[in-house]
Amino acid sequence: MSIHLTILGCHSATPRVNAHPTSQYLEINNNHFLIDCGEGTQRQMRKYKVGFSKINHIFISHLHGDHFYGLVGLLSTYGILSREKDLHVYGPKGIKEVTLLQLKVSKSHAKYPIIFHELSSKESELIFEDEKVLVRTIPLNHRVYTNGYLFTEKEKPRKLNMLNISGYQEIDKADYLNIKAGKDIVLSTGEIISNSELTIDPPKAKSYAFCSDTSYKPDIIPIIENSDLLYHEATFLSDREDLARKTKHSTSIQAAQIAKDSNVKKLIIGHYSGRYKEISSFKKEAETVFKNVELAEPGKVFSVN
Amino acid sequence: MSIHLTILGCHSATPRVNAHPTSQYLEINNNHFLIDCGEGTQRQMRKYKVGFSKINHIFISHLHGDHFYGLVGLLSTYGILSREKDLHVYGPKGIKEVTLLQLKVSKSHAKYPIIFHELSSKESELIFEDEKVLVRTIPLNHRVYTNGYLFTEKEKPRKLNMLNISGYQEIDKADYLNIKAGKDIVLSTGEIISNSELTIDPPKAKSYAFCSDTSYKPDIIPIIENSDLLYHEATFLSDREDLARKTKHSTSIQAAQIAKDSNVKKLIIGHYSGRYKEISSFKKEAETVFKNVELAEPGKVFSVN
Repeated sequence: MSIHLTILGCHSATPRVNAHPTSQYLEINNNHFLIDCGEGTQRQMRKYKVGFSKINHIFISHLHGDHFYGLVGLLSTYGILSREKDLHVYGPKGIKEVTLLQLKVSKSHAKYPIIFHELSSKESELIFEDEKVLVRTIPLNHRVYTNGYLFTEKEKPRKLNMLNISGYQEIDKADYLNIKAGKDIVLSTGEIISNSELTIDPPKAKSYAFCSDTSYKPDIIPIIENSDLLYHEATFLSDREDLARKTKHSTSIQAAQIAKDSNVKKLIIGHYSGRYKEISSFKKEAETVFKNVELAEPGKVFSVN
Repeated sequence: MSIHLTILGCHSATPRVNAHPTSQYLEINNNHFLIDCGEGTQRQMRKYKVGFSKINHIFISHLHGDHFYGLVGLLSTYGILSREKDLHVYGPKGIKEVTLLQLKVSKSHAKYPIIFHELSSKESELIFEDEKVLVRTIPLNHRVYTNGYLFTEKEKPRKLNMLNISGYQEIDKADYLNIKAGKDIVLSTGEIISNSELTIDPPKAKSYAFCSDTSYKPDIIPIIENSDLLYHEATFLSDREDLARKTKHSTSIQAAQIAKDSNVKKLIIGHYSGRYKEISSFKKEAETVFKNVELAEPGKVFSVN
């Protein structure tokens, strides 16, 4: 049970020499996800040694260029790399048409299957589930239809406390599944052995909430609360709260307020506007509201173990 | 009369950390053109200090991703930079639909006018002309419809040789236009003063031919012959001529043969396949056929004065 998040890009609007638009690589419970894919993402993936072939699921928050203009290039590269396995792309309605048209004009339609999962609901929905991980949308409020994504590990069964179990000759392997599932055991004497005596807590399931781009939207709090890690955009400092409101972005203070009210363990901020020459002020400002704040920077890895 | 060509990217297929897909910035006779626009071009433009606002004309050779996936990002950036003046985009039929759809889904349709010039002719045609420069297509042979572009300075009128002219009191300002146009002057005595005595040759008009991507296609020679500068793709070395033929690319030797048979002054090669770890072999191989060969590399500037 662990999360490793690699920031590939974390700047808003236009790519610059040392500013890369949004993209993140998430390893969670042995799943490998790409989140957003601004122009130049595949170059950043190579720079930070992200294994292209590991990724089977790409989640796009919204169809602004700085979050998806790198997608078609990556899909083309998968073709050049002779990918054969399915690739799932999650994103707003429209993503399929715009992507396939680009592949069509270049006559480079992928030989591997691309499965588009187009989203249009305004409610949070479960969009991915396997034996290890769940992914839910986090409806956000931006100038175009936008979702954040909540990635949650599935709880593992309880672990057997073999030292204590061996003290009861009557308990045998046939009981183990019930014990792992949290059940108490009734001995032939009628004595009830509490499950807590027979098991150890499993590793706690971890969760990561990705929220970009959005205006301050406190109604996401019930969805993301108690997350181990929250990425929340902070395009502006509070000095430009007016501009944040107008462009439907958040300030550093607003991101921190969401983190505090959601009781998350750590907040990562990013999507810095190019108008700010240095980013340390984002952290300083957020820390006035919430203690555990980190700045997203390309190549930085955030782990939850 | 001068040409300055800046290589922004010159590698084939997929962007990598130190490999950038095709794009070139051409300054010719005070015109500023962008040629091809692979993913990451706008970042390369910033890196090599290309003034975004100077460019009013973008020429796209063909709709393979490594030649145009950076276009929509650049157009979006022009929107963010509040561009107001016209931008002309030349490229194969289909470029308008695919570009506008991307701008539409992101609701970022440019407020400045984008004028698309869609090409579909298989014959060379004049597609741009102003008082200083002509641009013609160079029909190429690739897996999709592809054009190279020939950029030619317009000849300036002949220069007045004022020292010699002052020797003839009878010749006055009213004659200057005729003299500049190359005409002889007849004096009242009936004596004919040859134009060559009254004028100096103007600076020679320069030309640059861009040819990417294409299989070996000698019928372009009449179009590009005597160019000062020729960029011709050389995706492979001769060891993989089979692959060049199959993928409709050229080898280094073939590019050099075109340069030789066209009597150009200098050949620049590029579009190197990622299979080659170093590029010096491309130059060595080409030099066995044609003497004046240079390797395209990001940031390199080639000038003709």
